[in-house]
Formats: sequence, structure tokens, C-alpha cells
Amino acid sequence: MRIRFFNARVLTMEPGKDIFVGEVWVVEDRIKFAGTEEEALKYCDTHKEEILIWDREIDCKGNLLMPGFKDAHTHSAMTLMRSAADDLPLQDWLNNAIFPIEAKMTGEDIYHLSKIAVLEYLTSGITSIFEMYLTPFTVAQAMADTGMRCVQTSCVNNFSQSVELLEQYYNEINGKDPYNSFILGVHAEYTCSKELLEKCAELTHKYKAPFWAHIQETDKETKECIERYGMTPIEFFDSLGLFDYGGGGYHLVWTNDKDREIMKKRGVYAVTNPGSNTKLASGIAPIKEYLEKGITVAIGTDGPASNNCLDMFREMFLVTGLAKLRNNDASSVDAKEVLKMATVNGARAMGLNDCDYLSEGKKADIIMLDLSRPNMQPINNIEKNIVYSGSKENVLMTMIEGIIRYENGKFNIGVEPSDLYSKAEEIKKRIYG
Amino acid sequence: MRIRFFNARVLTMEPGKDIFVGEVWVVEDRIKFAGTEEEALKYCDTHKEEILIWDREIDCKGNLLMPGFKDAHTHSAMTLMRSAADDLPLQDWLNNAIFPIEAKMTGEDIYHLSKIAVLEYLTSGITSIFEMYLTPFTVAQAMADTGMRCVQTSCVNNFSQSVELLEQYYNEINGKDPYNSFILGVHAEYTCSKELLEKCAELTHKYKAPFWAHIQETDKETKECIERYGMTPIEFFDSLGLFDYGGGGYHLVWTNDKDREIMKKRGVYAVTNPGSNTKLASGIAPIKEYLEKGITVAIGTDGPASNNCLDMFREMFLVTGLAKLRNNDASSVDAKEVLKMATVNGARAMGLNDCDYLSEGKKADIIMLDLSRPNMQPINNIEKNIVYSGSKENVLMTMIEGIIRYENGKFNIGVEPSDLYSKAEEIKKRIYG
Repeated sequence: MRIRFFNARVLTMEPGKDIFVGEVWVVEDRIKFAGTEEEALKYCDTHKEEILIWDREIDCKGNLLMPGFKDAHTHSAMTLMRSAADDLPLQDWLNNAIFPIEAKMTGEDIYHLSKIAVLEYLTSGITSIFEMYLTPFTVAQAMADTGMRCVQTSCVNNFSQSVELLEQYYNEINGKDPYNSFILGVHAEYTCSKELLEKCAELTHKYKAPFWAHIQETDKETKECIERYGMTPIEFFDSLGLFDYGGGGYHLVWTNDKDREIMKKRGVYAVTNPGSNTKLASGIAPIKEYLEKGITVAIGTDGPASNNCLDMFREMFLVTGLAKLRNNDASSVDAKEVLKMATVNGARAMGLNDCDYLSEGKKADIIMLDLSRPNMQPINNIEKNIVYSGSKENVLMTMIEGIIRYENGKFNIGVEPSDLYSKAEEIKKRIYG
Repeated sequence: MRIRFFNARVLTMEPGKDIFVGEVWVVEDRIKFAGTEEEALKYCDTHKEEILIWDREIDCKGNLLMPGFKDAHTHSAMTLMRSAADDLPLQDWLNNAIFPIEAKMTGEDIYHLSKIAVLEYLTSGITSIFEMYLTPFTVAQAMADTGMRCVQTSCVNNFSQSVELLEQYYNEINGKDPYNSFILGVHAEYTCSKELLEKCAELTHKYKAPFWAHIQETDKETKECIERYGMTPIEFFDSLGLFDYGGGGYHLVWTNDKDREIMKKRGVYAVTNPGSNTKLASGIAPIKEYLEKGITVAIGTDGPASNNCLDMFREMFLVTGLAKLRNNDASSVDAKEVLKMATVNGARAMGLNDCDYLSEGKKADIIMLDLSRPNMQPINNIEKNIVYSGSKENVLMTMIEGIIRYENGKFNIGVEPSDLYSKAEEIKKRIYG
């Protein structure tokens, strides 16, 4: 497809580039052109041999085009437990409301339930997800079938999956289709033996690849690791050589100066999950400290059983809001920095270097935000508007790989939402009884 | 108008009453009937003499009808400063980004700017607001003209308005039209002299009326009052007899046991504003402590310069989420309690006793929430869904006083949104230059 967007405000997210009024041209999976009307005319002038025929021309009516959001940590199929595991102490939540349900989920269940999450990502302008769940192959299938860009890592631990499977996922999912990729990782320190982690370190060295895990989400987890090994999880992972080729951690709420020193040195990304950390009372991550240290921060929703929604707008507000509360300073963590976390930094963390900016040659993973809704009016500062007052109601369009998957409230993912909901209802009945 | 809603899930918010599938009938400004289909048939059977002719019959397709949200603290016209005053330390924010702008606003500006806020309330299912701003008469006009239910209080202080004006507002706004009412109040302790507050106490006694103010929003404000009078603002107000007929406070972040004892004794409501308290780094209110004490808590968005959006879904998530963080307990402040705060308690705080439940004889202030959006699926627990994953995208309809003011994304408030936006643009140019 060749799609021309015109009469748009364009936020490319390139450093130092302001929002401009102009056009964006998409040809197949890539952005062919993004510039002012004047630049568009000039392009036509200097490329007279090129015949531009459009399958579709979209009048953006002054609304905003920008790179899609990157949800840098999620467990999609946990849609099943949405609102079935709330207001519980953390251990109850995990041991009684989550693990016993997960034990009953099949790969096919996960395939369908992940697609419900895809619907929700699209409504929030999310064009890529960093996923971790039980059955990577069926997840990859769900993503290829719906057209959602998905970077997976494994949740290998002492009780499920294995290092052999991890290597198999890595080799078989990477390069299979344009939507899916795979990064090495484990569930968390507290669920993995030292031996298992040592084997993972061999893998990261074999493939010269980064390494990811849930890290230091809770105070308890961090303290228990110190009891076990005399080191925090970050220190422990580093001592095993797991970060020799970089990587990152999800949550990272309870880090100290030494941890952050290691993260900086090894190029370890911090993915923050403020909605989940709030609802599960895990704490407030030290975002200001990460920024001051020069650690790259990205944002994830976490899964819908812990959050309970897959909404980048809520997460963005929480990243800056909670930092302000933590630091007792209303100027802490500027909204523009947060917008970068939700887009550019997420792309980098996930290894999606072609999905960071809305600019020529990049992947066409683009969203259109409605600026004519009252929450955006009057227009004083669009970037701050997005972070502080933006909501799903503003998402007019979500395009991934040059294909419009969501537009004016309607989905285009190869299956009817109502069919997915019926499927989920069946699964619920079987599992919850 | 006579409107019949059928095929609806109905959440009445009456204590102990579960969600049921059925019908809701609205005749003029009131709810005539709310019950199951069986009960509806029975009604027809026992009221054979009554001829039910409908102006409109709405198939709710299984979506949810419930009482509208009550936004129990806001400053509507501050839409002007939305996203023009962010990421600033609190004193900078107030002294450089807010006060100088407010000094330039006219009553007519406030009239138009308040209407932009009305648009946004409607998108969030808010059917009543508890408003405080500079020109109560023009605000009341904006509310009557758009059909938004509005309870105002005054922001009288040493520098603007007066006790005489306060009494005039009280007498002239109350009873004027079905949309507007007025409650006695002042801006805050730190902006009012003791003499002014004593005069207010005379008024509350004269009218046997409750009293409201911003109270103990920041630690600084609370400590300064203790320095001035040897008492917290709550104690000080109580010592002047201001709470002799009840009342309430907005924010109430920094209260101690003694304050809460007074609040309980005097029937003082606590209106919490978590979005604003987060963004302005004011702190986390002790919601669990209020509930344990039996103090009634309602929820407000605060104005769009401090929040920056008028979104009850964000506020509801924050009320429970921040309580969980504050108490380090994921079971703290159950979502169902929060839903009550956002509806029933708000109505009580605002003196809108006819707007608390969706039941026979009550005012027809009703919203319809879309349960077929992916953020609500699968349906495990609708009340928790609303609080934890609900968003403006779910608001299908907002009805106030029996009139549908918002439906499927379109507004019915007697003026085109685009005209209001143009007006705001003019005001912006004049004031910001």
C-alpha cells in the first residue's frame, strides 16, 4: 500500500526537531517522506521521473502524526485474569490468583488471549510490545496473524521452559517474519538457580547478545538475593557475565547507586512499569536517578492482571507524576523526556532501531492523535498535552508495518473482536469453572 | 423527553444491589423505572391505565448504565492554562504561571473557557461538578447554557471577592435554575485573614450551612498555619465554628489524627484530588485512614492547569493506587469503595441527594459505558474494570437532567466545540500575547 497523509502536524521525535505542519508518505512498510508541504513540493520537483500514485490519501485535519508507542514490558495473555485478581496482597495475588490459573492455560488459550491484548494495544497507539510469556511460539503466531510488532523474551525459570528451549526460541523466532523477534532473558533471579543463570551466560556469550529479566521489582526480592549471594540481582547477574553484551531489566524499583553504576557501565536499560508497581504496591522507581546517571529508561504497562490496562497514556502520566511525588519536586522528570521514553527509548531497548523516529527510511509504525478532543484544547503545548492529558480517546489511527490496524475505533487484525471475546469466555468457563 | 433504555446492564450504586440486566426509563428529568425485564413487564401489568409512549428507545446492547461521576473539586476555566504551566516547582507554578494569567481573565473569558471543560467532563462521564472560580455568575451561566449540573463555592480571600459577594452568590445562584447551586466557602486558610473567616462563620450560622475550602493540600500550608495560630487549618476552622453545620475540604493531604477526629465529629467530607497532588508533588492523601475513621471521601480532578485533564477514570485509579503505595499494601482501598467515592459520596458532598443512585425517583444523571472495548474484556468484574482499566474511550453516553449531552463522541451543549476552541485561541492570544 502507498498512503499519503496530508494536512498533518508531525512530531518525528528526532532530537531537536520541532513539530511541523506537513505530509507523511508511506510506501509498503517504510516511511518514504516526512516534511513540510514546501518540502513535499520540492521533492516532487526534483524527482520528476517518479510517479506518485496513492492507494489512499488521508486528510489529517491538523491532527498529529507521531511514532507509535513502544510498550516495553507486558504479558499479553494475562487478559484472562484482568479484574479477577485485584486488591490482594502481592503474595496472595501471585500464589492464589495467578499461578494456579496459569497452570491451566494452554498454548491455544494464550494465542487467543494475546489477541485481545493486541486490540487494546492498538487503542492506545502502541505499535510494538516487549513480551514475556509461557509459550513464545503461539504468541509469535498471534502477533504475525494480527500484525502487531513483538519482541519477545523468555520467562525460563526453575519450573518452566529451559535454556535449550530459550536457544530454540532465539533461533527460530528471529528472522521468521517482519513482526517477531526474540531476545535472550529469564523470568527473574528469585525463580532461577545459579546453574541455570550460568548456562544463560554461556548463551549470551555464544550469541554476543543482550540479556533481560524482571529485576528488583520488590524490596523483598532484592533483600533475599543479597541474603543468598551477598549481592543485589543486578550485581549478581553482572558477576555471572550476563550483561557483557548489555541488556535490561523490567521494573527496577529497588536499585542503589552501585546497581546504577553497573547499569550505566554495561548499557543496561531500565524499563519502568509504574501502573503495575502502583497497583501491586511495589514502590516508586528512581527515574530521576536513572536519568541523572545517563541510563536509558523505557516504559511498559506490565500485564493486564497487574495493571489492569494496556494504556501508555496512563503509564506516561504515572512515570512523571510518581517521580514528582518521590522527589517532592513538581519539576522532576519533564514530560518531554517521558514522551521520548515511550517511543524512542522503547524502540532502542527492544532492538527496533528502525522504529524510533517518524522519518524517511524508518518503519511505518505511526499513530494519529486527535487534537480536536477537549482534553487537548486549547493547544498550548502538544507534547505536554500527550503526557499529561492524553487518553485512548485521542487515538484516531494505529499503523504498523505500513498497515492501518486501527482507525476511528475499528480494528483490522483479521478477526472480529466479538469472536475473540466469545473465545475468552469459553476459556474462562473452562479454567475458572 | 421520555427515553427507554433496554438490554442494559444496570449498576444502581444502591448498597448491596448487584448489577442486573434490564431497563431504565427516563421521563423528563427523573428516573421513572429501573429494573429487570421481568419487573418491567410486571410494571406494565399493574399500571395498565398508563400509556407509555417513548420519544426514543435505546438498545444498550449489554453495555452498562450507571449514575454519572461527580467531580467534587475543579476550576473549569483553567483550561486556558492546560499544558502551559507544567514541570514547575509549586511556587513558580502559582506565582509565575497561574496568578498573572488569572489577573487578565474576564468574566466572559471564564464563561467560554468553562464550556471547554464541560465538553471534557462529558467525555469522562462526569454529570456534576463542584466548582470554585473567580466569577460565579458567569460560571453559572455557562453551566445553565450547556446543561452541566454544577455546585459552586466561592474562592473569596483577602485579595478577591468578599463576604458580601459570597452571600450574594449564595442567595442568587441557589434556586435559580435546575443546574446550579451554591455552597458557602473560601479559597483557603493561607489566603484569608482571621477576620474574614469570622465573618464567614457568621454566614454559616445565619444560613445553618456547611462550609468548604482548600484545606491542608501541602505540608508547607499546614505548618504555616500551625505557626500562625498554633493549630492546623482544620482545627483553626473548627475553633471559629465554621464546621458547625458540616462542610468539607478539598485535597486534605496533610491531616493528623486530631484533624480526622474533628472531621468525623463535624461530618466534614474529604475530597481527594490525586492527579493534582501527584503532578504538583503535594503528597499522597491518607485515604485508608479516612475510611477507617468513617469520614466520607469523594473525588475531584482539580483544575486542568494542575492535573491536566478532567478524567474521573485516571483519578479513580490514582485514589486506590496511591493508597496502595502509601500503605505498602496491594489490598488497600478496594476498587468498589473508590467507585462509591466517585458517584454516591460525591453527590452527598455536593448536596445532590437526588443524584446518588440510578433508581426510581432520582434525577436522570446517567452514563452508559461500553463494555465491548478491549480494556473491559473478558468481563470478570465490571466494577473493578471501571476503576482499574476504564477510560474515556468507554463513555458512550452522558445524560444530565434527562437530556443526552454526549453520545458516541458527539456533543449536544448548544455550541460547536470548534467555536469554543476558536474563542479560546482568541483569549490565549490576548492574554499570553
